[in-house]
Amino acid sequence: MNASTPLTQDPIDIAQKLAAEFATTAAQRDKQGGNPKAERDLIRQSGLLALSIGQQYGGQGADWQTIFKTIQSIAQVDSSLAHVYGFHHLLIATVQLFAQPEQYGPWFEQTAREHLFWGNTLNPLDRRTTATQLSEHEYVFHGDKSFCSGSMDSDILLCSGFNEDGKLLIGVIPTAREGVSFLGDWDNMGQRQTDSGSSHFEQVKISKDELLLNPGPLSTPYSSLRPLIAQLIFVHMFLGVAEGAFETAKQTVQNQKAWSKSLAENAVNDPFIQKHFAEFYVQLESVRLLADKAVQRLQGAWEIGEALTAEQRGEVSIAIATAKIAATNSSLYITQNIFQVMGARATTAKLNLDRFWRNVRTQTLHDPIDYKYQEVGEWVLTAKVPDPSFYS
Amino acid sequence: MNASTPLTQDPIDIAQKLAAEFATTAAQRDKQGGNPKAERDLIRQSGLLALSIGQQYGGQGADWQTIFKTIQSIAQVDSSLAHVYGFHHLLIATVQLFAQPEQYGPWFEQTAREHLFWGNTLNPLDRRTTATQLSEHEYVFHGDKSFCSGSMDSDILLCSGFNEDGKLLIGVIPTAREGVSFLGDWDNMGQRQTDSGSSHFEQVKISKDELLLNPGPLSTPYSSLRPLIAQLIFVHMFLGVAEGAFETAKQTVQNQKAWSKSLAENAVNDPFIQKHFAEFYVQLESVRLLADKAVQRLQGAWEIGEALTAEQRGEVSIAIATAKIAATNSSLYITQNIFQVMGARATTAKLNLDRFWRNVRTQTLHDPIDYKYQEVGEWVLTAKVPDPSFYS
Amino acid sequence: MNASTPLTQDPIDIAQKLAAEFATTAAQRDKQGGNPKAERDLIRQSGLLALSIGQQYGGQGADWQTIFKTIQSIAQVDSSLAHVYGFHHLLIATVQLFAQPEQYGPWFEQTAREHLFWGNTLNPLDRRTTATQLSEHEYVFHGDKSFCSGSMDSDILLCSGFNEDGKLLIGVIPTAREGVSFLGDWDNMGQRQTDSGSSHFEQVKISKDELLLNPGPLSTPYSSLRPLIAQLIFVHMFLGVAEGAFETAKQTVQNQKAWSKSLAENAVNDPFIQKHFAEFYVQLESVRLLADKAVQRLQGAWEIGEALTAEQRGEVSIAIATAKIAATNSSLYITQNIFQVMGARATTAKLNLDRFWRNVRTQTLHDPIDYKYQEVGEWVLTAKVPDPSFYS
Amino acid sequence: MNASTPLTQDPIDIAQKLAAEFATTAAQRDKQGGNPKAERDLIRQSGLLALSIGQQYGGQGADWQTIFKTIQSIAQVDSSLAHVYGFHHLLIATVQLFAQPEQYGPWFEQTAREHLFWGNTLNPLDRRTTATQLSEHEYVFHGDKSFCSGSMDSDILLCSGFNEDGKLLIGVIPTAREGVSFLGDWDNMGQRQTDSGSSHFEQVKISKDELLLNPGPLSTPYSSLRPLIAQLIFVHMFLGVAEGAFETAKQTVQNQKAWSKSLAENAVNDPFIQKHFAEFYVQLESVRLLADKAVQRLQGAWEIGEALTAEQRGEVSIAIATAKIAATNSSLYITQNIFQVMGARATTAKLNLDRFWRNVRTQTLHDPIDYKYQEVGEWVLTAKVPDPSFYS
Repeated sequence: MNASTPLTQDPIDIAQKLAAEFATTAAQRDKQGGNPKAERDLIRQSGLLALSIGQQYGGQGADWQTIFKTIQSIAQVDSSLAHVYGFHHLLIATVQLFAQPEQYGPWFEQTAREHLFWGNTLNPLDRRTTATQLSEHEYVFHGDKSFCSGSMDSDILLCSGFNEDGKLLIGVIPTAREGVSFLGDWDNMGQRQTDSGSSHFEQVKISKDELLLNPGPLSTPYSSLRPLIAQLIFVHMFLGVAEGAFETAKQTVQNQKAWSKSLAENAVNDPFIQKHFAEFYVQLESVRLLADKAVQRLQGAWEIGEALTAEQRGEVSIAIATAKIAATNSSLYITQNIFQVMGARATTAKLNLDRFWRNVRTQTLHDPIDYKYQEVGEWVLTAKVPDPSFYS
Repeated sequence: MNASTPLTQDPIDIAQKLAAEFATTAAQRDKQGGNPKAERDLIRQSGLLALSIGQQYGGQGADWQTIFKTIQSIAQVDSSLAHVYGFHHLLIATVQLFAQPEQYGPWFEQTAREHLFWGNTLNPLDRRTTATQLSEHEYVFHGDKSFCSGSMDSDILLCSGFNEDGKLLIGVIPTAREGVSFLGDWDNMGQRQTDSGSSHFEQVKISKDELLLNPGPLSTPYSSLRPLIAQLIFVHMFLGVAEGAFETAKQTVQNQKAWSKSLAENAVNDPFIQKHFAEFYVQLESVRLLADKAVQRLQGAWEIGEALTAEQRGEVSIAIATAKIAATNSSLYITQNIFQVMGARATTAKLNLDRFWRNVRTQTLHDPIDYKYQEVGEWVLTAKVPDPSFYS
Repeated sequence: MNASTPLTQDPIDIAQKLAAEFATTAAQRDKQGGNPKAERDLIRQSGLLALSIGQQYGGQGADWQTIFKTIQSIAQVDSSLAHVYGFHHLLIATVQLFAQPEQYGPWFEQTAREHLFWGNTLNPLDRRTTATQLSEHEYVFHGDKSFCSGSMDSDILLCSGFNEDGKLLIGVIPTAREGVSFLGDWDNMGQRQTDSGSSHFEQVKISKDELLLNPGPLSTPYSSLRPLIAQLIFVHMFLGVAEGAFETAKQTVQNQKAWSKSLAENAVNDPFIQKHFAEFYVQLESVRLLADKAVQRLQGAWEIGEALTAEQRGEVSIAIATAKIAATNSSLYITQNIFQVMGARATTAKLNLDRFWRNVRTQTLHDPIDYKYQEVGEWVLTAKVPDPSFYS
Repeated sequence: MNASTPLTQDPIDIAQKLAAEFATTAAQRDKQGGNPKAERDLIRQSGLLALSIGQQYGGQGADWQTIFKTIQSIAQVDSSLAHVYGFHHLLIATVQLFAQPEQYGPWFEQTAREHLFWGNTLNPLDRRTTATQLSEHEYVFHGDKSFCSGSMDSDILLCSGFNEDGKLLIGVIPTAREGVSFLGDWDNMGQRQTDSGSSHFEQVKISKDELLLNPGPLSTPYSSLRPLIAQLIFVHMFLGVAEGAFETAKQTVQNQKAWSKSLAENAVNDPFIQKHFAEFYVQLESVRLLADKAVQRLQGAWEIGEALTAEQRGEVSIAIATAKIAATNSSLYITQNIFQVMGARATTAKLNLDRFWRNVRTQTLHDPIDYKYQEVGEWVLTAKVPDPSFYS
């Protein structure tokens, strides 16, 4: 694919085709864990990595609605791939929010042209990586960093270190930069192919023009949209997983007899099973609509750009927090209760249907949902919008 | 107001002004029960009764979005008035769906011109009223009918009787027609000013051209939109009541100290209270969006007209059932739990804040919500849409 | 009945007979509100007011199990009467905990002999009543007091005032004492016949030997059992109301047809209705067992007497808080959801079935249940027992 | 240990020591799956396999309270071992209920003397194993059977086959009997060391005096206690798992800081975390008490013996169904929500804390909980007790 060539298909169709492909191996790959190299290459070849890159750089310049739909489609069958794919777009957005076009333009052009996959070694809660200025234009990053989703098998890396003043510096470098290594230590109960393990930076040299200093992280309401995009990626992951679980349960039940005591013969006519599915459906519809609304709000704020006020940013934040609360609760509810309708035979390890629950149970813990409630409740009662942070 | 004069204000603004007026007496009128004559006259004077009547008949020709918003606004302060006002528009829609323009045109013109209020004596479950054909053009209706919301103080009546063959005949007559009386026997725990008591028809003469025979009740997918409009009125009533309760709780809490054991000084900063309000808010947002979607679906089907297929009608039905399930659960949850945040002093009879719960608890029983779940679940599992009936 | 005469019947049987009598008028009396003089006199005549008074004073010396069961039985039909009756025994216990036998012996003898009803003007949160020492043996109480449950039509009054040092003084006086009056201003959405309105003390003289100074209020772990007894009375009220609602719903449903769409003919065979009743039953059983355990713990602590340690008292407190959380949630759940199974006709004001919900919704707000959760959670995590107060 | 020697320790202490031992490897063994041979041998050596065997046969003759407590203790750390251990006692009880002392006496003596472990190849829903009568005293069983928990590494086997008339015949044979083999095909998302895979009987000869024909399976109310014992084993497994998860969460949280936005410094003082733990605790207490009550009812029925009426058996059934509903809901709730309080770091595969949820999610599907609700609801409404079956 040439960088200036538009996609020949609707991006959502492309995502659904990828999803169909991933679905055939998802249960097995979840057990293996590790790096889904082949599937990441399929994503590279699909052209979807350029979706969020402006057309002036050879990308598709898609809106957020489209981007999130592709994430959701992939999450329906594989939330690990949805995660690393979604974070790729988050990192693209991050440099747009934290830097200027003259700086990120070349990165975007190369990304679109060569189908590069961006990876994450940013974790701002882990202060073990130091950033030392060697000269006016030269820095060295040194140390470890945990929770580096998508870092392995990436082509470009968003990385961070803390300087002597405790300030967070964020850089963009080729993953192949000398001194960068990954420990491959990710082994978790869920999101098992996200490669969210540790990175090690051994005296990695980073030039000043690779640092995102203007305007820098979370420095304005507009740049502070970054964590909100991350949260909204989670919302679409949770929603996608819940939809995938729902679809699996539906197909399973359609072939079953009702329990011997039922007034109905087939499971699809059993009143209890019908009511469970209606409960699932009502929750899914709610989350879909809350997510849509949040995306519209984000898109609106994105288009305002640097003129975005703190108040406007705050309203986006509340819409996303609202969607996240509902998506968290519903995805846990549905992935747990699909078993209630499918019955004991659905627990065979071969089907690996517990992965739906393990994936959302893991990812919904990114930051405590109780404090999303807290933010929304405080805003309802006092009109105070949440303070921007890497979690709000 | 002249029939051909457009409203001088946005209908939703008009509804909100009416609501502000009704709010001052709602607590007191709920205790009294009986007929809210003065408030019904304010609705007459507002021009809102012509909202659903086409402009060719001197009405406003408003879309369903607008009509439901006015119902919701009134329900925020007084769900009895929202009920009779909403049912007025339901009855207007009923004749559009069950009859032809040449028949209903004059009724609509008169309604718009004279600000007539329509009332309901239709209850299809109560078979006590008989309809006997006296001659080719003359019928007589005789007997009792229960649950006749809005019948007292109405100007025009939609009424029903069963003929010898057990067929339901529906007519439209002036409320003042000789032989029509109301027992005034409505005394209920909620919806106390809806006048939903019994009517008595003592040998009431009805001419054939007052009967809705072409196409008649629920005779086509399009005419079967009627019960769906009724259900969607309920959704907006439940939503409005929940919003009214939420707003009351918010204002109450904003002036309170936190409980002595709280880590916060003021109630608005108490973590438990914040979480309760966030739960309320997330539910309200969900219901608002589900209701919006259902209204859009209804509006789309309405615009298709008689060409509407059973399948298309079924999808409207599912969208409305989905919204109704959420609205039922959330309105009960919120009207019950506002007390948890407001505390013991909110229980004084003077404030009459239990009316929110009493109203939704009563109206949510119109038909069992379990069977709305059943319909949605069956559709999810088998793709079968609900059979049209006066409840589905 | 002679004071030294034992009851001729099992106290629980007596309570159930009273309940059967009260049931015939409960719906009507709830609407009236005001003072249930006739019913209070039936309680007087029943002998149950001496249940908690030791046999040496002419009482029955019943254990707490028996006392709480009688409260629960009455609450099944009338939680207002259960409240004033329960509080009578709370006030008897209060003087045992806050004073010495030589002081309270004569009061108890008179109470047992003359079937006196004790009333409450204690509310320690309302500091408007002052207690001024006139001479060594004479005090004067002056001012207002809110939430004085059972004060009207009482014979003996537990009252309180704050002295110049802000110390709470508690006294026991005849209700007929000069200067004592009641405003009759109780008009609430629930617990409408508890007479929980305001009292006014107009320069009321109280002698020092009427004050409970040794050991005084909440002065030891043992004396701090007082608020726990109050909380456990609430638990049995909530449980009784829930049981009454459950029984009403059961009898109603047993005579109903199932909804037209049901796979069953009769309501008792409808799967959704069966599941609702099972949910009610499981909750009721849980609350009954948690309440039983809490009563056993209280009885154990009561028998230990002044040797009770703070830790032992704390464990009683946790058992009671646990039961109260469950009783609060379940009584709200059941009293709201009985309507779901009974349907629309159960909302007629004649039946007044919303009173179950209004009563528990009101009484469960005595102190915020969120802080009962907080106490239990803190104890689980840190082993710290709740600090004694009038609410813990 | 000699068969006639009483245990030198309290059986519950022994179970707790075993549990402490199993806990050190439980997370690792769950990942491995397969047969926990070493741990089963520790159970053999503990003497607990004779707990349910009468003293006249060299066993301990423990009551059901004690037996269930030992199951619960083991389930707190390892619900697979609790399962096979619990089912051993179920199988012992089965022969007592389905046969006569002269038949089972020798088996019990041998079991107590040699510390034999009983295994299960009974599954009455799987009709693939045929039982053919060769001569008056000789039968041959042939075919497959699924869900044979604890069959591998067992010493004695309860097996079943269907004869030509479709009647279920149950036999007791040494596991080493020629022709018996196990497919080792158990690989499930939970209960991974229960060896609940398939057995194959290749023309296995069974003599008539090894068949349980008098009175035979579920032939009387008393013999129908068998499935109730199975259900009550599940209750104690669910409860034990929930307690184990709760304890793990508690210890984890006690060492954590609160989230940065919290009003508290440490997690143990965070209001949201405190409330979560209180919710867990209230549920655990409820389940403990419901389970205790069910055990008492079972013990009472057990002691009545063959005189047990259908009605009495039905009441035991309802008490157990009630406990099972609560245990199912609470164990799922707690094992899911412990993560909410522990946070993201608790998801590392090393800790394997999802096994709590996977285990109860799997085992709670043994038979659909909706139909336990159905049974309880039907009994509440119609007084009809559940028909005995292998699930009720």
